[in-house]
Amino acid sequence: MFLKKSVLLAAIVASSISLKAQNTTPAYFSRFDHLKMTRTADGILEVKFTTNNGPIVFTGKDHHDFVEAFSQIAQDRDNKIVILTGTGNEFFAQIDGPSLGDITNPREWDKTWWEGQQSLQNLSSIGVPVIAAVNGAATVHSEYALTSDIILASNDAYFQDYPHLTFGIVPGDGIQTVWKRAIGDYRSRYFLYTKQKISASEAKSMGVVAEVLPNNEALNKRAFELAKKLLTIPELTRRHMRTMFADDLRKDLLQQVGYGLAVEGISATDLKVAAEEKAKNK
Amino acid sequence: MFLKKSVLLAAIVASSISLKAQNTTPAYFSRFDHLKMTRTADGILEVKFTTNNGPIVFTGKDHHDFVEAFSQIAQDRDNKIVILTGTGNEFFAQIDGPSLGDITNPREWDKTWWEGQQSLQNLSSIGVPVIAAVNGAATVHSEYALTSDIILASNDAYFQDYPHLTFGIVPGDGIQTVWKRAIGDYRSRYFLYTKQKISASEAKSMGVVAEVLPNNEALNKRAFELAKKLLTIPELTRRHMRTMFADDLRKDLLQQVGYGLAVEGISATDLKVAAEEKAKNK
Amino acid sequence: MFLKKSVLLAAIVASSISLKAQNTTPAYFSRFDHLKMTRTADGILEVKFTTNNGPIVFTGKDHHDFVEAFSQIAQDRDNKIVILTGTGNEFFAQIDGPSLGDITNPREWDKTWWEGQQSLQNLSSIGVPVIAAVNGAATVHSEYALTSDIILASNDAYFQDYPHLTFGIVPGDGIQTVWKRAIGDYRSRYFLYTKQKISASEAKSMGVVAEVLPNNEALNKRAFELAKKLLTIPELTRRHMRTMFADDLRKDLLQQVGYGLAVEGISATDLKVAAEEKAKNK
Amino acid sequence: MFLKKSVLLAAIVASSISLKAQNTTPAYFSRFDHLKMTRTADGILEVKFTTNNGPIVFTGKDHHDFVEAFSQIAQDRDNKIVILTGTGNEFFAQIDGPSLGDITNPREWDKTWWEGQQSLQNLSSIGVPVIAAVNGAATVHSEYALTSDIILASNDAYFQDYPHLTFGIVPGDGIQTVWKRAIGDYRSRYFLYTKQKISASEAKSMGVVAEVLPNNEALNKRAFELAKKLLTIPELTRRHMRTMFADDLRKDLLQQVGYGLAVEGISATDLKVAAEEKAKNK
Amino acid sequence: MFLKKSVLLAAIVASSISLKAQNTTPAYFSRFDHLKMTRTADGILEVKFTTNNGPIVFTGKDHHDFVEAFSQIAQDRDNKIVILTGTGNEFFAQIDGPSLGDITNPREWDKTWWEGQQSLQNLSSIGVPVIAAVNGAATVHSEYALTSDIILASNDAYFQDYPHLTFGIVPGDGIQTVWKRAIGDYRSRYFLYTKQKISASEAKSMGVVAEVLPNNEALNKRAFELAKKLLTIPELTRRHMRTMFADDLRKDLLQQVGYGLAVEGISATDLKVAAEEKAKNK
Amino acid sequence: MFLKKSVLLAAIVASSISLKAQNTTPAYFSRFDHLKMTRTADGILEVKFTTNNGPIVFTGKDHHDFVEAFSQIAQDRDNKIVILTGTGNEFFAQIDGPSLGDITNPREWDKTWWEGQQSLQNLSSIGVPVIAAVNGAATVHSEYALTSDIILASNDAYFQDYPHLTFGIVPGDGIQTVWKRAIGDYRSRYFLYTKQKISASEAKSMGVVAEVLPNNEALNKRAFELAKKLLTIPELTRRHMRTMFADDLRKDLLQQVGYGLAVEGISATDLKVAAEEKAKNK
Repeated sequence: MFLKKSVLLAAIVASSISLKAQNTTPAYFSRFDHLKMTRTADGILEVKFTTNNGPIVFTGKDHHDFVEAFSQIAQDRDNKIVILTGTGNEFFAQIDGPSLGDITNPREWDKTWWEGQQSLQNLSSIGVPVIAAVNGAATVHSEYALTSDIILASNDAYFQDYPHLTFGIVPGDGIQTVWKRAIGDYRSRYFLYTKQKISASEAKSMGVVAEVLPNNEALNKRAFELAKKLLTIPELTRRHMRTMFADDLRKDLLQQVGYGLAVEGISATDLKVAAEEKAKNK
Repeated sequence: MFLKKSVLLAAIVASSISLKAQNTTPAYFSRFDHLKMTRTADGILEVKFTTNNGPIVFTGKDHHDFVEAFSQIAQDRDNKIVILTGTGNEFFAQIDGPSLGDITNPREWDKTWWEGQQSLQNLSSIGVPVIAAVNGAATVHSEYALTSDIILASNDAYFQDYPHLTFGIVPGDGIQTVWKRAIGDYRSRYFLYTKQKISASEAKSMGVVAEVLPNNEALNKRAFELAKKLLTIPELTRRHMRTMFADDLRKDLLQQVGYGLAVEGISATDLKVAAEEKAKNK
Repeated sequence: MFLKKSVLLAAIVASSISLKAQNTTPAYFSRFDHLKMTRTADGILEVKFTTNNGPIVFTGKDHHDFVEAFSQIAQDRDNKIVILTGTGNEFFAQIDGPSLGDITNPREWDKTWWEGQQSLQNLSSIGVPVIAAVNGAATVHSEYALTSDIILASNDAYFQDYPHLTFGIVPGDGIQTVWKRAIGDYRSRYFLYTKQKISASEAKSMGVVAEVLPNNEALNKRAFELAKKLLTIPELTRRHMRTMFADDLRKDLLQQVGYGLAVEGISATDLKVAAEEKAKNK
Repeated sequence: MFLKKSVLLAAIVASSISLKAQNTTPAYFSRFDHLKMTRTADGILEVKFTTNNGPIVFTGKDHHDFVEAFSQIAQDRDNKIVILTGTGNEFFAQIDGPSLGDITNPREWDKTWWEGQQSLQNLSSIGVPVIAAVNGAATVHSEYALTSDIILASNDAYFQDYPHLTFGIVPGDGIQTVWKRAIGDYRSRYFLYTKQKISASEAKSMGVVAEVLPNNEALNKRAFELAKKLLTIPELTRRHMRTMFADDLRKDLLQQVGYGLAVEGISATDLKVAAEEKAKNK
Repeated sequence: MFLKKSVLLAAIVASSISLKAQNTTPAYFSRFDHLKMTRTADGILEVKFTTNNGPIVFTGKDHHDFVEAFSQIAQDRDNKIVILTGTGNEFFAQIDGPSLGDITNPREWDKTWWEGQQSLQNLSSIGVPVIAAVNGAATVHSEYALTSDIILASNDAYFQDYPHLTFGIVPGDGIQTVWKRAIGDYRSRYFLYTKQKISASEAKSMGVVAEVLPNNEALNKRAFELAKKLLTIPELTRRHMRTMFADDLRKDLLQQVGYGLAVEGISATDLKVAAEEKAKNK
Repeated sequence: MFLKKSVLLAAIVASSISLKAQNTTPAYFSRFDHLKMTRTADGILEVKFTTNNGPIVFTGKDHHDFVEAFSQIAQDRDNKIVILTGTGNEFFAQIDGPSLGDITNPREWDKTWWEGQQSLQNLSSIGVPVIAAVNGAATVHSEYALTSDIILASNDAYFQDYPHLTFGIVPGDGIQTVWKRAIGDYRSRYFLYTKQKISASEAKSMGVVAEVLPNNEALNKRAFELAKKLLTIPELTRRHMRTMFADDLRKDLLQQVGYGLAVEGISATDLKVAAEEKAKNK
């Protein structure tokens, strides 16, 4: 195959240009309780969901914080690749229910409604490749993982949407959007209606997960290996690929999450109203 | 995992509220020749395609009736879950050709054109989960099954689009839309161009069918089991999930079926004109 | 099953009408250096990518010529079916890099930008079924194959996007569009980010390739066999099926390729600018 | 200008064919309390909004009934043209508030939510030209008028969205959709935010109203005159024009009204919750 | 205001670069019977609709030719600006009816159907600004003028859609698309349903026509004056502006014209069938 | 007219609830050089574009800062209404050219490209009504004003897009999107191609500006008067109205600005390349 050598050389040069060291640690790295951020000298940002160095126990404060956190990550051009991962043997699997406040109150829910939309818009506005390293149960907010470009999973990882139907409310926070795009109309409805567990290998056969790794060490190693490989793509090419790839998802999220979260809130309010009516009718 | 107990209790209460018995049998249950409708006390409506208690032999009158039938089903809030199924060992596989009238006449076809669009809009406007129990050959109007949320199939069931290319006309009545969404651009074209048969298990591997059951008894049992499970989802949550899930399909149907049925009619008319021309040229 | 006999007869008659022999060889068949076109008496046009009777070595002139070539093919109603294929053991795998001119110059690129969009619009405007017979490596412009209705592949064929990341530029010429439609968000990103090779049988399991044939003779034979089968579909039905099937893809291409090629051009220019800056900074 | 005479003759013949008299009065004409329907021998259906032969006082029952009423009108092919109008000097301007039930209760609202979407889908599915004759204040559900093809208004007529902001709830029932399409982003927001009155002549200058008539007699006369003119368009041409023209609006309604009514319901519920909270905090 | 001088200078230089003389006359200039093309030295291509040096009398051959003509104009990068205009006191107002062939025959119509779509796609693919100089009645194919960026009209010019309803067929060839975009839902329906004449000055007040000139000399002069002004915009900026501006229209045309022309053909066929039925029933 | 009194009372109560005083001044109010923010006790945030208390002279730093500024404004729920305005007799009319850096360098431009998209997404994500008070020339970034819900203008204000064609680059930063939505295809192209000035009163007749005020004092007074009126709309209703109204614009911006800014950057780079080529060719 003929290739124009000067162009190839230029590509090599260009990619090397972007690999200068970054020594500073931005202030936002330590501003968010349940996100641990570290960055390699060549710009690979690892974002870990975590609570007290263990698996994350998601709170209402996190829901609020993530809007800002994802915005800061996206604005910081020193991030060249982002890796999203969990801690220990859970990716994202616990909620501190009481911390969410009274989700049956429309005015309280309104905050959730706005934050939920904007955190996904900000997350998907990140202008560099994002790799999810799913290191265990992804049973809460798995849509975060699915906004990534490449999803790696350890053998014991699995996906499920646990909280919505356990609470009895509509799964409308974007989870409906990402899974429909990922596995199609019928599989995603079954997944959500029945709280189905999808294992890492099933997810691979469905085309969501790119690679299944034997354990979490291998997973972490592979995530960084892949990140380094993507770093060899010249800066602008790398940025434009990500943005181009995320385009359709962003539009779907913009279109569907406002509605989804609205009816999720309605279904929450209704639980309370129905209970009150039942109490009255006794 | 922490969960807010009061919310969970509310969810349990709320779902139980919707389970009150319905004793009435609406008039529309018996208004349509080839639809047999029965409803359980807790609101599971079974809609059976049938002709004289055997498999349905689809007629032009059915095509007209279904607009109204699906509208009535959708308007009736006592329906909490809908199961679509066939009779005996066929889901939907026979057409009474002559009953369709002269499909080569544009003015006759115009009725088909409007009814075809509206019956799918009404079917997909049903505001509660729909389960298709595909109990055998689905070779005619399989798009009805594919407007469902969850598709179960017995082991001997299969999908095919038999009539369009057998008649020599464009498969444009919505079948192009649902199958493209279900199995993608390339598989759906091959399916339609070659009148391919897709078995229940192939359909499962392609992500259309959720579960394959060994026989029709098991199929029916499983459909009701699943229906009962979905009934435990609180009323409003259940309704909004269905509507949210059906959204994109409805838009695609609105966008594509008018056009599809227009060119289907043109291709039918052309058969006659071509035959007349051939006769003249002899 | 009842079928209206007169309609069936009409269908048979109608399809036979379109099978009249075409003896003429249009001038455009021999106007394009790297396309070899031959047509059977019943209208099956085979379009072979080729350079000097061997596998094609794609040039900048081809990029320019294809706009016109695909337009002529689409305008010629004597083409009843089109088969796209390669030569020898390559479908499309070589580029004559220097022939592309200076892709880092925006004004030079502007031609590529317009041609790239229009050639895909013209190719997808072909109003009859298109079959791709992928006879080997499809590592360059595989989007041409994926604008087809049915893709057949020989056992040794494979798909890859080689040149973009080898040059270091954004894969934005439509390849992003067709592969996303074909294999979904996650698989297509992985395919492009990592220059993954997808074998014929993997492509079949992913739903892109319809049939894998043991070798190129079998492939060619099967392509013509299938073409003849599609010829039995009446003329207007056949034409409308193709057009209806290609609709969504055409819209996506119209929407995405102008943008994709714009950022591809930017990334090319940047390689040069970055190299110049590096040289200066030494 | 040359015209093919045989075609013109055919057009004249064809239009005359559709003008056969219809003597029957369908049962649905008298099934709905607040709709008065009469049809001319040549198929012009006049639908009058009315309560006790005076201007309509809209009720919750109407909201429910219109789903079915508009479905029946659309299904009846003997309707060749539809005229929508009001009674006396009001088009649609009064609501019987208490009849709406408790709109702050999500489960009650859910009915409104489904009916509101479906009544607009059914109204816009009418397959023949619809003329609105706006004979006075159109301050409630003016979206009904704006689903028409041609809007005529008497000099004293005006448009306003009175109830939503008077109740304090989101104007999300489709009124946001039709007015945005009709007068653009900025004018429609101002119209809704400020409860602006738009006079007939202003509406004409904005492109919504086609003709302003001096009084209601002239209005009625002109509506029928125009209807008769449209009747000279051949049957299928007339039907396809309407359907083609209504296409985009139907898609926008399908897309936006579910969401709009969801947030309208939330805003209603919130009024009650806020009032309860305020009472508690005293 | 501060401006970076070097950038401004570059702009001036860049625009001057594109103004080199083109001395050649491409072969396609004289290939099409009813298009007269001339080009200034600086690349302003004037395309005149004409028959025998008088106003154009549009034929079936033109309908076929325009696909190729517009494709050649778009491919030729020596065209820097395009002016579309008519001859004498008509822009486009006559049809040679018999030349269209038998539009009631679906197989004949199929050619019209494909050509109509593709000619508009090719016309709108022109990558440089297009100015329409409407020099008189635009009563046939006024959509050609409305694919332009800027529409100038002489005082006596007017717009109307004469042929469709005169023939009795659906105005579906794109005229519905451009006019809806240009003057909105309600005005465009009235325009088409009633064969309304819209004068140049009315069209200006509706936002379609940019400038009304007192007579055709002034019109022609102004068109070239404006063209020269647009030539001062640097080459790539000028090309990208046009393409960016035409984007939405192209998508709407791709989406709507296939359908529109399909139902237009159906309505034509129906005229014949209805006439035959009427003859039989006598 | 009947209205349910309890609902009306609830509405009054609910709106009053949101009117509690906010005494704190958030830190972000003073973080951005060229934005002056002040907030009334009842939550009306005035955002003034300004440089040294005079009219704003827009810099590259502002372009960067606005991403964060608009994000902070949107996140702060104490903002109940936002007023956007300028200073003195200019809304937004000056650019400090050199501060923009080298816009011809793709890597520099890449920042502009990302920031330009995200600042408009953040601005349009503001969840409360936004009023623009256009107090003079809006010749730079007028798209900021057009993301508002209601646009007021003083008599001497006018709109123009000055910088893009003065620099010689594509107006692709969103200005093409908002103006197309605001005044339609033809007027917006003319506006941009010819650097047309549109006066306040012309903009009113085109439907963009809601009210023209005699001078800037009246303008400011009216903006606050209107803001206070909108404050009487209950909190959730007010928030949902804005979000619902901004929906389509946000999607169009997401869809079009990435592309627009890409080709704007290409056109800038080309100016430099063209100048270099010209210099070489001398």
